Amino acid sequence: MSFELTPRTAPGVSVVGAAESLVEPFAGRAEAADVENEMCRQNFDDLLASGISSAFVPEELGGFGLESIHDWIVAIATLARGDASTAIAITMHHAIGRRMAQAYSLAKTDLGPDDERTNNLAEPLRKMVAGEMLICATATEAGTDNLHPVTEVVRHRQDDRDGWRINGRKIFVTMSPIATHVSTVARVRDDDGDDMANIVLPMDTPGLIPQNDWDALGMRGSGSQSVVFKDAWVPESAFGRMGPWGKWSLQYLEFRAIANIVLVGAFLGIAEAAHDIALEKLLTRSRVGQLAAEQSGIQNLVGEMALELAQCRAVLGAAGVEMDAYCERHSTSAASMEDAHGLMSDYQAAKWTVNRGAIGVVSKAMDLLGGAGYTNSDALARLYRDVRAGPFMQPFGPAELREYVGQVTLGQYPDS
Amino acid sequence: MSFELTPRTAPGVSVVGAAESLVEPFAGRAEAADVENEMCRQNFDDLLASGISSAFVPEELGGFGLESIHDWIVAIATLARGDASTAIAITMHHAIGRRMAQAYSLAKTDLGPDDERTNNLAEPLRKMVAGEMLICATATEAGTDNLHPVTEVVRHRQDDRDGWRINGRKIFVTMSPIATHVSTVARVRDDDGDDMANIVLPMDTPGLIPQNDWDALGMRGSGSQSVVFKDAWVPESAFGRMGPWGKWSLQYLEFRAIANIVLVGAFLGIAEAAHDIALEKLLTRSRVGQLAAEQSGIQNLVGEMALELAQCRAVLGAAGVEMDAYCERHSTSAASMEDAHGLMSDYQAAKWTVNRGAIGVVSKAMDLLGGAGYTNSDALARLYRDVRAGPFMQPFGPAELREYVGQVTLGQYPDS
Amino acid sequence: MSFELTPRTAPGVSVVGAAESLVEPFAGRAEAADVENEMCRQNFDDLLASGISSAFVPEELGGFGLESIHDWIVAIATLARGDASTAIAITMHHAIGRRMAQAYSLAKTDLGPDDERTNNLAEPLRKMVAGEMLICATATEAGTDNLHPVTEVVRHRQDDRDGWRINGRKIFVTMSPIATHVSTVARVRDDDGDDMANIVLPMDTPGLIPQNDWDALGMRGSGSQSVVFKDAWVPESAFGRMGPWGKWSLQYLEFRAIANIVLVGAFLGIAEAAHDIALEKLLTRSRVGQLAAEQSGIQNLVGEMALELAQCRAVLGAAGVEMDAYCERHSTSAASMEDAHGLMSDYQAAKWTVNRGAIGVVSKAMDLLGGAGYTNSDALARLYRDVRAGPFMQPFGPAELREYVGQVTLGQYPDS
Amino acid sequence: MSFELTPRTAPGVSVVGAAESLVEPFAGRAEAADVENEMCRQNFDDLLASGISSAFVPEELGGFGLESIHDWIVAIATLARGDASTAIAITMHHAIGRRMAQAYSLAKTDLGPDDERTNNLAEPLRKMVAGEMLICATATEAGTDNLHPVTEVVRHRQDDRDGWRINGRKIFVTMSPIATHVSTVARVRDDDGDDMANIVLPMDTPGLIPQNDWDALGMRGSGSQSVVFKDAWVPESAFGRMGPWGKWSLQYLEFRAIANIVLVGAFLGIAEAAHDIALEKLLTRSRVGQLAAEQSGIQNLVGEMALELAQCRAVLGAAGVEMDAYCERHSTSAASMEDAHGLMSDYQAAKWTVNRGAIGVVSKAMDLLGGAGYTNSDALARLYRDVRAGPFMQPFGPAELREYVGQVTLGQYPDS
Repeated sequence: MSFELTPRTAPGVSVVGAAESLVEPFAGRAEAADVENEMCRQNFDDLLASGISSAFVPEELGGFGLESIHDWIVAIATLARGDASTAIAITMHHAIGRRMAQAYSLAKTDLGPDDERTNNLAEPLRKMVAGEMLICATATEAGTDNLHPVTEVVRHRQDDRDGWRINGRKIFVTMSPIATHVSTVARVRDDDGDDMANIVLPMDTPGLIPQNDWDALGMRGSGSQSVVFKDAWVPESAFGRMGPWGKWSLQYLEFRAIANIVLVGAFLGIAEAAHDIALEKLLTRSRVGQLAAEQSGIQNLVGEMALELAQCRAVLGAAGVEMDAYCERHSTSAASMEDAHGLMSDYQAAKWTVNRGAIGVVSKAMDLLGGAGYTNSDALARLYRDVRAGPFMQPFGPAELREYVGQVTLGQYPDS
Repeated sequence: MSFELTPRTAPGVSVVGAAESLVEPFAGRAEAADVENEMCRQNFDDLLASGISSAFVPEELGGFGLESIHDWIVAIATLARGDASTAIAITMHHAIGRRMAQAYSLAKTDLGPDDERTNNLAEPLRKMVAGEMLICATATEAGTDNLHPVTEVVRHRQDDRDGWRINGRKIFVTMSPIATHVSTVARVRDDDGDDMANIVLPMDTPGLIPQNDWDALGMRGSGSQSVVFKDAWVPESAFGRMGPWGKWSLQYLEFRAIANIVLVGAFLGIAEAAHDIALEKLLTRSRVGQLAAEQSGIQNLVGEMALELAQCRAVLGAAGVEMDAYCERHSTSAASMEDAHGLMSDYQAAKWTVNRGAIGVVSKAMDLLGGAGYTNSDALARLYRDVRAGPFMQPFGPAELREYVGQVTLGQYPDS
Repeated sequence: MSFELTPRTAPGVSVVGAAESLVEPFAGRAEAADVENEMCRQNFDDLLASGISSAFVPEELGGFGLESIHDWIVAIATLARGDASTAIAITMHHAIGRRMAQAYSLAKTDLGPDDERTNNLAEPLRKMVAGEMLICATATEAGTDNLHPVTEVVRHRQDDRDGWRINGRKIFVTMSPIATHVSTVARVRDDDGDDMANIVLPMDTPGLIPQNDWDALGMRGSGSQSVVFKDAWVPESAFGRMGPWGKWSLQYLEFRAIANIVLVGAFLGIAEAAHDIALEKLLTRSRVGQLAAEQSGIQNLVGEMALELAQCRAVLGAAGVEMDAYCERHSTSAASMEDAHGLMSDYQAAKWTVNRGAIGVVSKAMDLLGGAGYTNSDALARLYRDVRAGPFMQPFGPAELREYVGQVTLGQYPDS
Repeated sequence: MSFELTPRTAPGVSVVGAAESLVEPFAGRAEAADVENEMCRQNFDDLLASGISSAFVPEELGGFGLESIHDWIVAIATLARGDASTAIAITMHHAIGRRMAQAYSLAKTDLGPDDERTNNLAEPLRKMVAGEMLICATATEAGTDNLHPVTEVVRHRQDDRDGWRINGRKIFVTMSPIATHVSTVARVRDDDGDDMANIVLPMDTPGLIPQNDWDALGMRGSGSQSVVFKDAWVPESAFGRMGPWGKWSLQYLEFRAIANIVLVGAFLGIAEAAHDIALEKLLTRSRVGQLAAEQSGIQNLVGEMALELAQCRAVLGAAGVEMDAYCERHSTSAASMEDAHGLMSDYQAAKWTVNRGAIGVVSKAMDLLGGAGYTNSDALARLYRDVRAGPFMQPFGPAELREYVGQVTLGQYPDS
């Protein structure tokens, strides 16, 4: 297939290879998860067994040692050919795992492998490998945007321990029904500033109340329920500041761009699945005595579908390469805010092309199959629902994206 | 709203007025029908009570005396603002009823109102008014197109009566679960030719076997199940020839163009409903302290949605006007095949713009509402599924439509 | 041709009929005007001789008595099939002539046909018929928009007469090289307010200095040079206020919407000419032994061209009908600002679809003809340059249009 | 700029660096070449002096030793930022030079560097470096396609030498006014078969008659005149067979894909130039007192322009990478016809996205600048004309491209 994405690093080859072996089993379970509106636990067992859950964990701790964002995207796209709900769910865990692995590697270099602090940082990575830690994440709340969370943490001492208390409601907490931990952002206002806080809590924390309210058009197996925090206690160790509330910081720009572009991969994977389903049927079915694949109108429309898919792949691949180059370039020296907006803008370019293009590809696949693709017995009908989730992904929805990219292009960087 | 379609004839004003009164009750019942995957019988009771079922029945027989195709489209679009499944279902009945009303009117003029034959033709129209006759229709079979039905009728004498026997399988027999009769096309090959036959049968005919297999992405309340004919008997009176099998005839071109353009109206109605839902919410909801309707990005996207809707309305309205002019022009003298292909091409132009544009409008509405519109608690999610049925409508699907319009534009008329 | 626009009123039929007779001669002269970058005076002689110049002049004064905006658009589109430069030029004269005709008709009703004031208002209309008055118009200046002209008039007494003095520079003063008068807008700041002023001056007014600087990509025969006003004297009779400077007034919204939508007609006419050129050649030329018109790829692309043209026609026709209905509705009672913004938004909808669609149609015609259409010996090459002028037309350029339509749709009316 | 293409090989870095130094001087001469409709000889002197003319010549013979198709594309795109006419012209010379360099390198490996045959193959390469050889090329004739040239060669003995005689007419012979040689394809029918022949002749060959008839909408400095062959004599050494006439051969598919994708680079370069012109002006100009770059509508449209440019870059870059991988993969073993169609299809994917996208980018730049960009004093007006040449490039024009890509996607490979 034209411009198909392939991994560029050795760990990427391993992860993507593992992902490929899961496409068929995932696809076989996708309908049931959709109908039952439940996460498919077996998929996550497979992700663990295959090592994909711990893709970013260094090899010496039992992971794949993945570093390339590009290859991460390819792996997620591959999984999504089988089941996009599972694919987007695991990205949450990956994004947090990747940061933990970076912290560990930094410590290993700076402090040595045997330092206690290094070892402490290895601990959760080992748990990931053992399947004892699965982290979901969310930055989304109703009525606000990623920069202005209303969920708030305040100082709170409990059982003689310093810490915090968190209150608020997060939505789209994908994978939360089976996660062991949740990572989220909140506002903290105190003498140290009005800041964005990053919080990681066990899912069984008292006051952390899953809402079991996920019932959506698509991505029904992603477990994207709401989670309420009601006076939930946050130990000091689970709390970190990451720049001012309501403003873009370097760290937050980078994190959102990198963690979220991977979601785009899932929508590419959906498009690829739809494309393949259409081709397979066109090569076997006839109409009024002529093979569908031999009809000029069908060929023309297949061409349009293939061209749209090629655009999606090329743009997402280019964005992945840019991301890797950015990480490489700024591995030793910090990027500027302009650099980071450029990174975010590249992600938005990928999002714009791929999320819309993927919808277009699935829609053309449906056009090609006619009414048959519209019935629920055909996987296309589910793909059509799943793929529509793409444009909402944060930050910069369809009503904001073009303006933001224009601002960055013009050097008119928004700070909030 | 810009370029909103309004009726152009007095009966049209009555029918559309009646349709408007049903928008709200239909909308209120749409979710249940969708969830239960059942036709909403109460909607059809309302259609009967309001007189919409018998829109084409002459006033002297108790109907609205509708004649304008344009106004018929407007009425269907109006109903579809409430529930598109019901709207497309009733078009089937309308299309047959319209032809029956024309036959009656012609007989009344030619033979006089008191002639027995005139009275015979009035009979089914009176039944429609009384709610004793509700006709569904289908021309669709798997693996072939409208011109080449595989379902076949052969001469068969039964109980000392001349007649026919029909065998085959029709799909997308919308409204069949509650209809009293079904109208369909089949092939007849005998000494009189290899022809297209038109058949109308009671739904309780032995050997007419509904399949109860409708389970689709959308339009779930339309009852579009398959129907199998297994040696079902067709009396002579229920049989008519309409031109050669496998070739366009004047009659068949005209009938398909007129009966099917009305379906396009339903998709316009879905788009209008989605547009209104989006506007209503944008005028009440805020994000980071600003009313959504006041944000430039939102305004820009609303503009795009409104412009797309305006195109749909203008094109469908123009097609309706052309159809009425065609009928007027050819009310006394027959049209040429070129004229009829022009009519069909106008329908295709409407279909192309409106079915795609309606999907675009619903999609933009969803973009505007973000993740909220993606959850099943929002009607938008259903509209997004319903609206996708548009492009499949016969004849000339997405892989054929442009080529056909090009052929007509170039005067290269296809005959099969 | 599908959805072709036809006049709806008797005077419209006359004007459009006259325009049709000019298509061929105009087309025959278009290349020379383009090459020489000059207005074609013979075209304007024809417009005068055919009565089109005085289309809006009442019949009793020797004109066609045109009133319908819809039919005006059709007439301009027809002329533009021959030469779009001439077509846009004459709209300027028409727009002013229409207002003069309205003023005369009102006076005739209110004061009687023999009143001196009525007669005074008839005078310029008679001159139009006699070819002694040809009015160009402009509202455009560099670096600002229609609502904020920088050109300014100030009180000035000259030769014992009350009056004004005007200074500034207008651009795109189409038809000014052959016009007898120019109508323009300026700012007036005095004790009566900070207002928009409307000025009409003879072109030979001292201090009115044509710049002879029109040299553009297309529309080269339109004479759209700049005009400088340097202390030009404006008699009291040539001065009128029309609402506050920098704000939309009812009068200004209506005038801009009605005067400018007609320009859209010219771009439709260009598209129609390109469409016809393409069809004609495809029906006569072969490639590798097959008639172009018989090739599936050609048919598919012709279909796309025809579908795009059909959209343009339908939308522009619908806008014309809306404009006529607006004028009818508000002929006795004033419209609200909301109504007038709705009118402007309808014009923008037509502009968006038609100006872009016309570019698309010409581009597809060029795709269909291949390299042959790219050479200057083919009229298509000129049409491709001419049609690109569409999107700039005032007010609301491509960067503003969608946001404005969105604002109107949301009821967030801008006042400046 | 987002997804900007950069060279991937060391020789590519050199060639692209040289090209960058020519952007400004080329841009400075582009208007004159356009107005005078003449090739700019100074540009070609610069290309020679900078070594770009001999980019593919091995370093030991004085060239850059370029091998990467990707980097070739980047170099052409870079030149086209200055002047696209010159950029497309030099691609012809490059494409032939590349094949000559490959033949030389192969001989050097197989026969040794001192073999006479190796030395003979080095000869024209040395001439290229010395500026004594500049080769134009064409495969285009009116009324047929690349596979079915009507120009024909027949056996002809002249002055006691074996050889051929050629008759026919080629169009779009870009760069022919200043070339020393022309390379073309023709039909040869004899006992050896009905084949495609490749011919290279000096431009001063008797019977080779340039027509000096290039006068097009754009690319006016490209010298793309017609050339007539009237009994021109072809020595044996200038003649080669390359597969059957009227059918795709492996060799011909590969050559057309590789030689022609580079042309796409030129259209990307035009888009980049237009993008930069627009940005520069938006950052300095104000409207009604606000900097253009700060207006939301402008930002939104700049975003759309940037997103479209990003797509073009990503797709063209991906195609370049694919081409290099193809050449690498098949450097020692021949590709299959399926592989070669895949290569051609990748080129078509690039052509589809970039040629259309580049038109879109230039058009958006023009929308952003308004009427100013429409006047001939602005380079944008020329870019708008130049960029329109893209879609015609052979093989597979806009009416064929999608169907071909669909055929390849479906494995329904066309052989003619």
